[in-house]
Amino acid sequence: MIIQLETAIEQRTKDALVDAVSSRGYNCLAVDTQVANYLVCVGKKDFDIRAIGNLAGVADIHRVSDDFKLVSRTWKVHPTRIDLGDGVVIAEGNMAIMAGPCSIESEEQIESVVQHLLENNVSIMRGGVYKPRSSPYSFRGLGMDGLKVFHKTCKEHGIKIITEVMQVSQVESMYDYVDVYQVGSRNSQNFNLLDALGKVDKPVLIKRGLSGTIDELLQSAEYVFSNGNERLLLCERGIRTYEKAYRNTLDLNAVPLLKEKSHLPVIVDPSHGIGIRKFVEAMALAGVMSGADGIIVEVHETPEKAISDGQQTLNFGESTKLIDKIRKTFQLRESL
Amino acid sequence: MIIQLETAIEQRTKDALVDAVSSRGYNCLAVDTQVANYLVCVGKKDFDIRAIGNLAGVADIHRVSDDFKLVSRTWKVHPTRIDLGDGVVIAEGNMAIMAGPCSIESEEQIESVVQHLLENNVSIMRGGVYKPRSSPYSFRGLGMDGLKVFHKTCKEHGIKIITEVMQVSQVESMYDYVDVYQVGSRNSQNFNLLDALGKVDKPVLIKRGLSGTIDELLQSAEYVFSNGNERLLLCERGIRTYEKAYRNTLDLNAVPLLKEKSHLPVIVDPSHGIGIRKFVEAMALAGVMSGADGIIVEVHETPEKAISDGQQTLNFGESTKLIDKIRKTFQLRESL
Amino acid sequence: MIIQLETAIEQRTKDALVDAVSSRGYNCLAVDTQVANYLVCVGKKDFDIRAIGNLAGVADIHRVSDDFKLVSRTWKVHPTRIDLGDGVVIAEGNMAIMAGPCSIESEEQIESVVQHLLENNVSIMRGGVYKPRSSPYSFRGLGMDGLKVFHKTCKEHGIKIITEVMQVSQVESMYDYVDVYQVGSRNSQNFNLLDALGKVDKPVLIKRGLSGTIDELLQSAEYVFSNGNERLLLCERGIRTYEKAYRNTLDLNAVPLLKEKSHLPVIVDPSHGIGIRKFVEAMALAGVMSGADGIIVEVHETPEKAISDGQQTLNFGESTKLIDKIRKTFQLRESL
Amino acid sequence: MIIQLETAIEQRTKDALVDAVSSRGYNCLAVDTQVANYLVCVGKKDFDIRAIGNLAGVADIHRVSDDFKLVSRTWKVHPTRIDLGDGVVIAEGNMAIMAGPCSIESEEQIESVVQHLLENNVSIMRGGVYKPRSSPYSFRGLGMDGLKVFHKTCKEHGIKIITEVMQVSQVESMYDYVDVYQVGSRNSQNFNLLDALGKVDKPVLIKRGLSGTIDELLQSAEYVFSNGNERLLLCERGIRTYEKAYRNTLDLNAVPLLKEKSHLPVIVDPSHGIGIRKFVEAMALAGVMSGADGIIVEVHETPEKAISDGQQTLNFGESTKLIDKIRKTFQLRESL
Repeated sequence: MIIQLETAIEQRTKDALVDAVSSRGYNCLAVDTQVANYLVCVGKKDFDIRAIGNLAGVADIHRVSDDFKLVSRTWKVHPTRIDLGDGVVIAEGNMAIMAGPCSIESEEQIESVVQHLLENNVSIMRGGVYKPRSSPYSFRGLGMDGLKVFHKTCKEHGIKIITEVMQVSQVESMYDYVDVYQVGSRNSQNFNLLDALGKVDKPVLIKRGLSGTIDELLQSAEYVFSNGNERLLLCERGIRTYEKAYRNTLDLNAVPLLKEKSHLPVIVDPSHGIGIRKFVEAMALAGVMSGADGIIVEVHETPEKAISDGQQTLNFGESTKLIDKIRKTFQLRESL
Repeated sequence: MIIQLETAIEQRTKDALVDAVSSRGYNCLAVDTQVANYLVCVGKKDFDIRAIGNLAGVADIHRVSDDFKLVSRTWKVHPTRIDLGDGVVIAEGNMAIMAGPCSIESEEQIESVVQHLLENNVSIMRGGVYKPRSSPYSFRGLGMDGLKVFHKTCKEHGIKIITEVMQVSQVESMYDYVDVYQVGSRNSQNFNLLDALGKVDKPVLIKRGLSGTIDELLQSAEYVFSNGNERLLLCERGIRTYEKAYRNTLDLNAVPLLKEKSHLPVIVDPSHGIGIRKFVEAMALAGVMSGADGIIVEVHETPEKAISDGQQTLNFGESTKLIDKIRKTFQLRESL
Repeated sequence: MIIQLETAIEQRTKDALVDAVSSRGYNCLAVDTQVANYLVCVGKKDFDIRAIGNLAGVADIHRVSDDFKLVSRTWKVHPTRIDLGDGVVIAEGNMAIMAGPCSIESEEQIESVVQHLLENNVSIMRGGVYKPRSSPYSFRGLGMDGLKVFHKTCKEHGIKIITEVMQVSQVESMYDYVDVYQVGSRNSQNFNLLDALGKVDKPVLIKRGLSGTIDELLQSAEYVFSNGNERLLLCERGIRTYEKAYRNTLDLNAVPLLKEKSHLPVIVDPSHGIGIRKFVEAMALAGVMSGADGIIVEVHETPEKAISDGQQTLNFGESTKLIDKIRKTFQLRESL
Repeated sequence: MIIQLETAIEQRTKDALVDAVSSRGYNCLAVDTQVANYLVCVGKKDFDIRAIGNLAGVADIHRVSDDFKLVSRTWKVHPTRIDLGDGVVIAEGNMAIMAGPCSIESEEQIESVVQHLLENNVSIMRGGVYKPRSSPYSFRGLGMDGLKVFHKTCKEHGIKIITEVMQVSQVESMYDYVDVYQVGSRNSQNFNLLDALGKVDKPVLIKRGLSGTIDELLQSAEYVFSNGNERLLLCERGIRTYEKAYRNTLDLNAVPLLKEKSHLPVIVDPSHGIGIRKFVEAMALAGVMSGADGIIVEVHETPEKAISDGQQTLNFGESTKLIDKIRKTFQLRESL
């Protein structure tokens, strides 16, 4: 059960509400986000929620039987819009495109990608400065130094940044330099990180775990939301299956299901989803038709020289074509 | 290595060829299809194939390093066209639509579906008369009686039939009443059935196994082809993964990969691929954009009364909309 | 619901029983096995089964809520004993050992294995004459010729034979030469084959499918039983997972669960379960401690020369050690 | 390539070594653990390592072609012994038993378990104070307060503690109160946490990820080792597969493979591995026979009242029996 509180509610009224709910055997968690204040109430007994709905201080009340509450579309039927400023909005009805290299490598590399994005009218650049790598001996990213250059260059051209955060201490240090935090697959259930991201006022894109379920992804989003941050994006990036003909198995079934279960935007990552450059286009366009609100794709001036993920990264020519096709496909989808 | 033989080759010349290949440590299998005659040669040592290519009787020769040979695009670069007669062709560049109920239930049901297909200009009807069921106590289909009625009604209206064959003895008994044999997921590696289907001159659609790999699917097709039947279709219908939010996980990654590896048409089955009626449309359209040559979908006048698979079956209204959207999406894809 | 009928029941009494059950909305299937006669009744409404239990002709009656009925331990609490004659019995409380090559290759090979089995007091030899192979170009077994030699040699030495049957037509042709039919993983849901095996009076070992569930395995056994053959064995042989460090993932969790759900003996196949020779011993002994009633293992005089599966096949020295360790481990298990 | 340095090596000599290796195109990482000092050298070109082996300062040198180096058995053939003090040693040739509740709940609960362990001569108690939970609304553990009581009670009775650490900041705060840090499945690739655990001098048990591969588990251990901590334990606790009849699929294949690939002790967790109380015993004993060096099992005085994991937790009677059987089974294994 979710109770949205009136904006100017007094503490006394709020306490009375909590008491009323608790007396029915429910636990109450007060959640204050940048947008609104809620009580999330979890319990087992069923009762007529109108008895609570009529109390002072209640703006709205909803029963939510899912294990996830705040991210559920059951209570929040209007889809969430993520406004990054300067007219850049990720939301249902738009088609957000985020492109860039796997790893930030140098100022020159950033500039070449930014130029490519500007030419294609793309406003969000991806690029990792902290890289989770299976082996401790692999390149692990340029860190804060890289991020600062990344940020400076993008800022100059009005490009927004999405980049991966790997641990709690980075949430604060990265804050001034990112527009969207990305939680990677391996950290999809790093609950302390999710808690910490709930306490900042910047959007967070959460990637589905390597073998994460739909429910786990929504619960991970619930962690962030229930800590106070409701500006969230969900990302399907392929799951681990028995099939080894591709890097991952892009699970587009997830898209219509997530869109129905949650009010959050859903992004598809075809680069990791199939992991083979020449097939990225087909999977991106399939992602659009499955109902995605955005596509995140790996692009590099010279993929064959990229430090990481070169085999699944598009060059600028391929990227330009894909961006055009994404937009035309999205346009068709909206017209059907 | 595949050697395509000259049409009018004499047995003597053929024997000499086999000797020449065998002497290099290769095993030769003579494959005679309705279309052409081949020698499929499997061996380990590498040699200059021009030495064979210059011999009498050789129309064409190709090295194929894949485990599958005859179904590989390496040697047969022109995509296979499956002509069902009366202008019904399944092939790259078309968008075949096959629709109908999970199970054939009655003459009335067949007629209502045929009427629906005619109204939507769809020429191929699916419908099972032999149903593989996990439990021996479930409905197992109307069998030959059902098939005969199915065939009679469709024939009258120029509709082609695709229906599942479950065992060797049915290949012959069903022959006069089907246009395309379907091999179901559970029989995807029923090698005796595949052998038998290689000996008839009607097309065969092979579904990927429950947890079949891309390679296994191609090898299953190789079974049929190497027995003499090259009119084959491959079908992605969802695989078994850890995710239980849907019936199967539709693996659209398979589509561009199969299209690259093989010259055979690739069909997507979104009904089994997600198993939830309201999401079938999204996955069908995603399937089109992933590069499919056709869509096979479950349709019934009153899905809630269907004997089997009702939860994933479209009603006529939903089907009409979907067919229109498939065609528009395909049109866009071809124009990009 | 399962009704075991009195041995000398008259048709009239049986008909009355079926009527009584049918009138309560249940479907009845009469199952006559070599051992007893049953009515398997499937329906949805609940009623007091004592009303049926008191009718003439009923020897015993049980409610079975599982989807599988006849193979359930709910009604048949005494474990099934498979008596192969000559004192060879597979059953709970024994530890059956079945050993032999993947493929039957020659008379010499059979004789060397038989000799090895005799020296180790093993009474059941495995060996395939029909081999399901992913590729049509692989060796597919010696067929009936091989089986006849296999049978003759084993018969002379009192060794029982277990060998794979791949299609309906082989059930009859193989009948005189086998002691236990084996249904391979790829045919675990070949329902026509299961039906046919239900009509013979020789035991059948059913391997779990490549990615078969516990329930599907039990349902496959139900197919055979409900067709009239209750002499069945279940076999865990590894499942297909994302992990590729071994051929399959041996799922020993299946053993205690199958033992609880069903009265049928459970056999473990460590050779296919891990697929790496040096680890077969560890997995065989783990299988014993997990509660298996038998172990089936691949053995060959010179594994490195075996036509198939050499990489997971033990040589005679390894086999001798393993057999001894299996017995000691089983002895410990029974004493705990 | 791993170079073990002489104990008293001078910096100058070390620098010269690094130069010699670097000049051959290899990157060098200096790893100083509590036990020894190493250079881990990663590169692609092959050369005769004796050229390096003869240089000053080299105690030993080994080529390691695996992606993981320091945890590989290729160079360190003697198995690692984890000495917790007071005669408690986890190592090949022992059978470590770790038992206790899923969550630490109260002082009374701790005392009752400690008493149970003492009666059964078990020296290591498990129990979580930081609980990773899918839902933010679930009980997340007693935290440091719980840990302090846990530690005090165990210390008084000479019981060692293993408990989960979830984030970097806890590594230090928990340090005085734990004997073995546990990294849970969801943090198996939390690389920052692994880095931090490499810098402390207490042992770390790393659980395999939810769908972690053998290689990923070894690489995760490599992270800790290469940061300076070589006192590591690997834990198989079940993987995520399509089969939902149990909580996880205990993958005992992993045990002999890990034992061969690495010198680290391997622990099996049958409680999470199957997740069903009555089957925990069978899987624990199977784990012993598969070659495990220890078993970690959930035990609670009244499992039905446990805050978490009650359905897979043994009561004291069951635990007492299991501990005895584990020891007898281990004794047999060592005698075979």
